[in-house]
Amino acid sequence: MSDATVESFLDRTLRNLRGAWEEVSVSTRHYWTGAPRPDLPTDDLEKIRGQMADCLSDKGGEVTARVRAADLGRSYLSLNQTGRHRFLGLLATEFGADHAAVDMAIGRLREAKDEESRRRAERALRAALVPRWRTLLRRFTALPEGVKFLVDLRAELIPFARETPELADLDGDLKDLLGAWFDIGLLELKRITWDAPASLLEKLIAYEAVHAIRSWEDLKNRLDSDRRCFAFIHPNMPDEPLIFVEVALVNGMSDNVQMLLDEEAPSSDPKNADAAIFYSISNAQRGLAGISFGNFLIKRVVDVLKHELPNLKTFATLSPIPGYRRWLNDRIETGEVPALTSSERKALVQAMELGNDATDVDLIRGGLGVDGWWDDDVLSEALKGPLMRGAAHYLSNEKRRSGGAGDPVAHFHLSNGARMERLNWLGDRSANGFRQSCGMMINYLYRLAEIDDNHEAYTDDGRIAQSSQIRGLAKS
Amino acid sequence: MSDATVESFLDRTLRNLRGAWEEVSVSTRHYWTGAPRPDLPTDDLEKIRGQMADCLSDKGGEVTARVRAADLGRSYLSLNQTGRHRFLGLLATEFGADHAAVDMAIGRLREAKDEESRRRAERALRAALVPRWRTLLRRFTALPEGVKFLVDLRAELIPFARETPELADLDGDLKDLLGAWFDIGLLELKRITWDAPASLLEKLIAYEAVHAIRSWEDLKNRLDSDRRCFAFIHPNMPDEPLIFVEVALVNGMSDNVQMLLDEEAPSSDPKNADAAIFYSISNAQRGLAGISFGNFLIKRVVDVLKHELPNLKTFATLSPIPGYRRWLNDRIETGEVPALTSSERKALVQAMELGNDATDVDLIRGGLGVDGWWDDDVLSEALKGPLMRGAAHYLSNEKRRSGGAGDPVAHFHLSNGARMERLNWLGDRSANGFRQSCGMMINYLYRLAEIDDNHEAYTDDGRIAQSSQIRGLAKS
Amino acid sequence: MSDATVESFLDRTLRNLRGAWEEVSVSTRHYWTGAPRPDLPTDDLEKIRGQMADCLSDKGGEVTARVRAADLGRSYLSLNQTGRHRFLGLLATEFGADHAAVDMAIGRLREAKDEESRRRAERALRAALVPRWRTLLRRFTALPEGVKFLVDLRAELIPFARETPELADLDGDLKDLLGAWFDIGLLELKRITWDAPASLLEKLIAYEAVHAIRSWEDLKNRLDSDRRCFAFIHPNMPDEPLIFVEVALVNGMSDNVQMLLDEEAPSSDPKNADAAIFYSISNAQRGLAGISFGNFLIKRVVDVLKHELPNLKTFATLSPIPGYRRWLNDRIETGEVPALTSSERKALVQAMELGNDATDVDLIRGGLGVDGWWDDDVLSEALKGPLMRGAAHYLSNEKRRSGGAGDPVAHFHLSNGARMERLNWLGDRSANGFRQSCGMMINYLYRLAEIDDNHEAYTDDGRIAQSSQIRGLAKS
Amino acid sequence: MSDATVESFLDRTLRNLRGAWEEVSVSTRHYWTGAPRPDLPTDDLEKIRGQMADCLSDKGGEVTARVRAADLGRSYLSLNQTGRHRFLGLLATEFGADHAAVDMAIGRLREAKDEESRRRAERALRAALVPRWRTLLRRFTALPEGVKFLVDLRAELIPFARETPELADLDGDLKDLLGAWFDIGLLELKRITWDAPASLLEKLIAYEAVHAIRSWEDLKNRLDSDRRCFAFIHPNMPDEPLIFVEVALVNGMSDNVQMLLDEEAPSSDPKNADAAIFYSISNAQRGLAGISFGNFLIKRVVDVLKHELPNLKTFATLSPIPGYRRWLNDRIETGEVPALTSSERKALVQAMELGNDATDVDLIRGGLGVDGWWDDDVLSEALKGPLMRGAAHYLSNEKRRSGGAGDPVAHFHLSNGARMERLNWLGDRSANGFRQSCGMMINYLYRLAEIDDNHEAYTDDGRIAQSSQIRGLAKS
Repeated sequence: MSDATVESFLDRTLRNLRGAWEEVSVSTRHYWTGAPRPDLPTDDLEKIRGQMADCLSDKGGEVTARVRAADLGRSYLSLNQTGRHRFLGLLATEFGADHAAVDMAIGRLREAKDEESRRRAERALRAALVPRWRTLLRRFTALPEGVKFLVDLRAELIPFARETPELADLDGDLKDLLGAWFDIGLLELKRITWDAPASLLEKLIAYEAVHAIRSWEDLKNRLDSDRRCFAFIHPNMPDEPLIFVEVALVNGMSDNVQMLLDEEAPSSDPKNADAAIFYSISNAQRGLAGISFGNFLIKRVVDVLKHELPNLKTFATLSPIPGYRRWLNDRIETGEVPALTSSERKALVQAMELGNDATDVDLIRGGLGVDGWWDDDVLSEALKGPLMRGAAHYLSNEKRRSGGAGDPVAHFHLSNGARMERLNWLGDRSANGFRQSCGMMINYLYRLAEIDDNHEAYTDDGRIAQSSQIRGLAKS
Repeated sequence: MSDATVESFLDRTLRNLRGAWEEVSVSTRHYWTGAPRPDLPTDDLEKIRGQMADCLSDKGGEVTARVRAADLGRSYLSLNQTGRHRFLGLLATEFGADHAAVDMAIGRLREAKDEESRRRAERALRAALVPRWRTLLRRFTALPEGVKFLVDLRAELIPFARETPELADLDGDLKDLLGAWFDIGLLELKRITWDAPASLLEKLIAYEAVHAIRSWEDLKNRLDSDRRCFAFIHPNMPDEPLIFVEVALVNGMSDNVQMLLDEEAPSSDPKNADAAIFYSISNAQRGLAGISFGNFLIKRVVDVLKHELPNLKTFATLSPIPGYRRWLNDRIETGEVPALTSSERKALVQAMELGNDATDVDLIRGGLGVDGWWDDDVLSEALKGPLMRGAAHYLSNEKRRSGGAGDPVAHFHLSNGARMERLNWLGDRSANGFRQSCGMMINYLYRLAEIDDNHEAYTDDGRIAQSSQIRGLAKS
Repeated sequence: MSDATVESFLDRTLRNLRGAWEEVSVSTRHYWTGAPRPDLPTDDLEKIRGQMADCLSDKGGEVTARVRAADLGRSYLSLNQTGRHRFLGLLATEFGADHAAVDMAIGRLREAKDEESRRRAERALRAALVPRWRTLLRRFTALPEGVKFLVDLRAELIPFARETPELADLDGDLKDLLGAWFDIGLLELKRITWDAPASLLEKLIAYEAVHAIRSWEDLKNRLDSDRRCFAFIHPNMPDEPLIFVEVALVNGMSDNVQMLLDEEAPSSDPKNADAAIFYSISNAQRGLAGISFGNFLIKRVVDVLKHELPNLKTFATLSPIPGYRRWLNDRIETGEVPALTSSERKALVQAMELGNDATDVDLIRGGLGVDGWWDDDVLSEALKGPLMRGAAHYLSNEKRRSGGAGDPVAHFHLSNGARMERLNWLGDRSANGFRQSCGMMINYLYRLAEIDDNHEAYTDDGRIAQSSQIRGLAKS
Repeated sequence: MSDATVESFLDRTLRNLRGAWEEVSVSTRHYWTGAPRPDLPTDDLEKIRGQMADCLSDKGGEVTARVRAADLGRSYLSLNQTGRHRFLGLLATEFGADHAAVDMAIGRLREAKDEESRRRAERALRAALVPRWRTLLRRFTALPEGVKFLVDLRAELIPFARETPELADLDGDLKDLLGAWFDIGLLELKRITWDAPASLLEKLIAYEAVHAIRSWEDLKNRLDSDRRCFAFIHPNMPDEPLIFVEVALVNGMSDNVQMLLDEEAPSSDPKNADAAIFYSISNAQRGLAGISFGNFLIKRVVDVLKHELPNLKTFATLSPIPGYRRWLNDRIETGEVPALTSSERKALVQAMELGNDATDVDLIRGGLGVDGWWDDDVLSEALKGPLMRGAAHYLSNEKRRSGGAGDPVAHFHLSNGARMERLNWLGDRSANGFRQSCGMMINYLYRLAEIDDNHEAYTDDGRIAQSSQIRGLAKS
């Protein structure tokens, strides 16, 4: 939602809420509703502080309090980045929990003699620890599209909180609030077709994060009869997908994404397909970062598809390996590339007209440095071995701090119980494909009978389920 | 939702969630899923304890954890009252906050030297204070109709919590959880007409709390063209009204509810009406007790009606005085009834053939003791004065502990900013009307320009806005 | 639609259509819009004639012409039966085809020399034969609910046309018009559940023609999880079922309708049912008499059910035999009742304490004359044989003028390709069941592989598909 | 609907209709269902004749007959242009009315002695005149999307019928059939917004006939908050607009279409607009040619807009003058161009460096011959006078055969009661605008109080309502 849209909805809201009450509210409110200057200089910050305090008060009743929250929301939207950062800083530092009240409650808790007074004291302490900003955040929900306003607010807050530790609690608290509203149990799984509203479909175009949607025709092709697209949607934000997945219904496990996305390819009868390939999963709301939907999404979609198309036997992804190239570059820097076989050496030496004394690192760096190496049959053939082994090694052995797989996409699917099934050489021939993954793609396979075991082995012991192809490549 | 319905939905859920995963989950879960005995004897309580602990664990991933929650929900539903009480007691006493963790966090908080470590310690303390049952409660939401399950669970918990203080925190926490989901900003105001689904309409019949709906014909009459019915509905429970209000569009402020509900009366053109009379407001979900919707409902409905029918000038209720008769009986016991005028005395003495030495108390008690006194013109005329004065006195001066009006309906409307406008003699001639209110009704008037002032005067100082009629009666 | 409703919609229409055009139309129309007297005396008939002529003119454009049609519609609705009869008589006699134009076109046709001029002449003749009233009838459709107005108009016209031959063409033409709009291809098959609008459900109660729906509870029971109800609905009359069928999902072919309709019976899991019993089919719109939907309805419903519930093996009706008792009474009058066996004779003679010389006719007439004979075990057992044989004979041999089965329900199902499967003794113990069918019911069986053959054998040769039970009974 | 789509729906249909009935229909039908060769050579034509005859028979019942119609529809779709022309020719020539039956009915009519036998004879004659193809056409409607099939069939039939007179009756009859289904009373007026299904919106892009929609962004701009788009839609073809109008809400009567369509222009608040400009009306279905919706559409839209936005005072079009340039070219050929004033002469002589003896015709022809004359200020200024006068003359005096205005857009709006209000110089600077209208546009004004009078004056006497500007220009 652009600021313009938000502003228009806040205006609308104010009209709605005030409506008949206009006369009244004018007479009884004394708080400041002027527009602050965009970067919120000290004077205006002072006034906003008063406005925030007003919003926390119950003066005039709950309805009037919500009108004040709308005014405050409008002030926020009129600010530039600097102003918003200051606005949120003010909220975070001055409208947190009341330290004195916390200390007093702690005192009482320590004196509690019996279970009942302990309980009472804990209750009081819990209440004292609730930051005051929470009341204010919750008041925004009464606005039409107020939930979306908070989601967008958090999208802005996250980068600020990285710079400013004081904002971390506000961010954490807002995340909890959003996490409760966007609980998986409150979401609807919706199939999205070409019959969906254009206002919803344009968001798929905007939010697609894996393989950019180039045009409405490209989008239409992805919603064709042998494709499926599913999204989780919250009933209060019916036009906003939270996360969506694109699926191709094909025969056999796909090994190339350009073939999947080819608009010219004829569509086939989905009833004859034996494989459902998940080729793109995109989170659509930055403001919901850290609230997880993806694992539910894949499992629900598998269920839905199995029911609709009983012929489907294979459920797998066709996924990028987004961290591979950067990892490989780092290895090249430090000289730790996979060893070349003698025939690979020979081919590379010839292809690049280098001397026999060129190191493996030189040869690989050199090969990758050739513009369009993938279109050179000899070069491409010579690089295939080391790059595939390197990718298998990267996927299998590179770890994140918490112990899981270093590659983010790998970590996501392994956590869900999938296994690494097949590396696909030149599976993504787009510029981005080469930049991230040296043109490689991987299939993660969701085999129903193994999902729970895979999940536990991975989560508890860091063990990664893999096919023999990948295990073999990684070892060599 | 009856237990049968819930059980069927849980079954369905288990099928849904397990579905493809069946094979898996069978292999990996070790927890007890047997049906407990209805009153949950100690052995079974032990097993349920294990099941609860299992539900809190993340073993097998989030989806599998939700399957376990559904199993536990089914166990709960198979219990009788005794069993459920014990089940909830177990949850409340053993799955609250972890005392040791709380104490440790407090220790750290007290040692915090700077703002940042203080903040970190507060955060840790806040986390430690979260009862473990909350994780479990939230897992239920992933079930279809899981929210409704929790609403119904709380409806059962409330009376238990009155008896058993240990349950109060669980109840309070569940109320907070429900309060976040049922935030007014997440609800939709819907007009309910005769075109609504029968499955929704039958709930109006079941939930109507003020003037019982006698039949589908009675209901249809209340949804006629010169009537309006509005409800707040949560998008996750689309067939369940949370609260609803019934409105009659008439000329002048209504003074008799039987006339309003007369099915034989012809319907009039709402465009000619100048008054909207709110004659019934019913909360539909006992499990949402303490979460307030009513004040929003009335104001939203006033806005909607003003927009649809610009001719409306008066927005008022026609309300019962539910506590009056009991209050009057108490006064009769203690001899503090309103003083009779001499003509009233004379009339009552005559009507009941008592001696002149009968006290006011005797006369009023006697009059009210006559079966069908309201149909006896003389008696009714003689009682009118003292009963009206008594009602005005009761409404104006009887207080609740918090300082507000003692009568619950009065307190509700005064808190919303309405004023007491007119007492209506024999405004409700139903058996219930006589039993509760001596047949009287009152109009609370919502005058838009005064609502905020009224609200503040009442909330801050306990001052009640009243018409001169009521003020006069209360004084005399 | 009651007259009141229609009138209100016409008012609304006039407002809609006039709206902005009000000023205009007032200035340009000169035709009479006064309300005629209810029985349309000669003077007013004269004025209505002018109004009709006005409606046929294009003066002021098509929109204005439709406004005039609405005025005329309102005039019609203000009339009583006599007035309406005269109104329709006027339309039928004076606004038919133009005889002179017809004769002229015939003249030209007879002179046509070549194929092309013959075609042109036929075209002109076809146009000349179009009655002028058709223009007027079609203008009504532009009114909101105008189609419903015409359906209701025809419902009134049909009995008039029986008395007055001049009205037959008007009726036939209106039937054709309605037949085009209500073409099966334009209808939607909708499943009706308890979630349907009350305004639609109350029409099921009103229109049910076979087994009266006694209450909303009875209706709810008929929409339970082991029941199905389907209706054909026209998109322009979304709240009006045209025809609907009620189905019970059971095990085995039902033999008693009271058991099917028992509200106390527990509902069973439809997935386990092996038989779908069509126990009631009702046409809802008298004004669509002669336009057939029933055969499509049954076949479409069978398809839908087979798809939803693959376990269903048997599709059959449980039907009344509405003409049986009257036919039997006629036979008793003429002395042609089925012959009794000697044991039947003996039992009846005993049961009624008659002499041995009592004729079969006497015995049967006597038995049926005993109040509540069905509750008398001896009598009931004695009558079973002759009544069953009589029914089989009636169903098999009684013919209508066109050669088909005399019983209307039998004719309907046999035309659809069903076969007579089983006679059920005391299958309908309601008062109506005894009055019409001596308490008997019959199952018509829809066996998919035989439907077309059955249909052709019946339609072409009058051959009736029957089970051996019925054939045997009919022969004996 | 492309052939591919139609074919797929027919396949679906056959599956639907056959479904359970498959076994049956295979056994009982003997007709030819093989695929004919694309150009329908004589042998195959013979077989199709048999298939048509089969479709007319009732053998196997109505449902089976519809299955046969679907087969025949599939045969049709498999043909190329030549084949379809022959197919329709066969239908038109051999399945029309039965001449012999017509002649016999005529004979009986001529012998009719009394009113009743005359009526009966007319009825028989009317029936005999119904072409047999109508039964077949109506059978197609039972297919899903069958109505759309017939609309598309007629779109193909129209050009054939222009070449082949034998097809005219078939076309006329199909038009009548479609005219009854698409009666204005059966259509819904729908506002189309950016929230409409993409599958509907892409049809606006395809069908827009006045100012081509260049992209989805252009479309989105035309559906912005200060724009409106309305369409008539038939409930049986919910994804197919029949006709749609695009409206801009602006201040003052627009004089330039590029400014209206500028995607960069900020959107304004529609509540402040005082004028609604209808800048594009497009018929979307060629197959509905001759069935008029436009006049209803404009009037309904005016009503809807007046209700939504009471500030609107002016309802006008911004229309092209599509026939002007061609007419002007013809005049230039015959030397009848508007006379130039002396200052215009002078300016043109100078601008084109011609001699003083150049005729008016030479000068105008020469000026228009200059590429991009409109960007040459002197030339453009010099041509403005004669081109404006010429346009006014063309619009006012050029007649069609029936007497109405020669320009088709002018005729449409004048028939609807609009008046010619203002000629806008360079109101359409697109290539098409110069090619058709010398860059000019005209506003037709819908003044509510004058519409009926204008309509009648135009329809009855050919009088055109005009502003003084246009009258003045036309006279000079």
